[in-house]
Amino acid sequence: MKLTIAQAQAVVNVLKFRNGLVTAVARDFETKEVLMVAMQNRRAVLKTLTTGLMYYWSRSRRKLWLKGEQSKHYQKLRRMLVDCDGDVLLFDVEQVGVACHEGYRSCFYREVKRGKLVTVLKRKFRPEDIYGRRTTSK
Amino acid sequence: MKLTIAQAQAVVNVLKFRNGLVTAVARDFETKEVLMVAMQNRRAVLKTLTTGLMYYWSRSRRKLWLKGEQSKHYQKLRRMLVDCDGDVLLFDVEQVGVACHEGYRSCFYREVKRGKLVTVLKRKFRPEDIYGRRTTSK
Repeated sequence: MKLTIAQAQAVVNVLKFRNGLVTAVARDFETKEVLMVAMQNRRAVLKTLTTGLMYYWSRSRRKLWLKGEQSKHYQKLRRMLVDCDGDVLLFDVEQVGVACHEGYRSCFYREVKRGKLVTVLKRKFRPEDIYGRRTTSK
Repeated sequence: MKLTIAQAQAVVNVLKFRNGLVTAVARDFETKEVLMVAMQNRRAVLKTLTTGLMYYWSRSRRKLWLKGEQSKHYQKLRRMLVDCDGDVLLFDVEQVGVACHEGYRSCFYREVKRGKLVTVLKRKFRPEDIYGRRTTSK
């Protein structure tokens, strides 16, 4: 999915940014598996809508971030939903490779079982093979 | 799902609160439909895990909030997943009634179509019938 600049701006104008940010949930467009949650500023939403690729705002690195710019594990935009308050966005995406910098398909690879975190997904890549070195996703 | 206080504290201790908060995504435990996204502080996570009912932190009202305390539309905890960074939680819940204060099953009832927000879910309740008067969920 790609919008014109005018269409993307119309969408951004109805969103409610808190300290300049909205929360973005990315979900597999077919299985509906939740892949990751990150933040977006106005520019990240605009870039996402006009390029059809997911962009986020990295709070730790304080920069705009094209998901997959390093790993090539891009997220292609298929559908966007907006919550009642306009401050959370739900994106259906076509995930190339894996979403998580730890090498799992989804960042939610750990489940709470009797007070412990248990890994419930299979690792698809070693982080070194994605990035060359360990890094953080956000 | 309910944990003992000691088990719940062990879980909370591995989370990474940012300004005292983590992001919580609540999803229908059967259909996996994303119902809502809100924030939790340490106490909200502890209360959720020990009571088996979803609690959130309301940033606008600056208070702990039992989901359903007013509307009786509680969310019963079935499963909890934690993301790679430990700052986003994904909850599978059994939703009583509807999640959204606007009367929709999910807060994500609007989809972006050609630059416009289009309502794509059916309203199940009028907000007045849930709360007596209009209010906000967060």
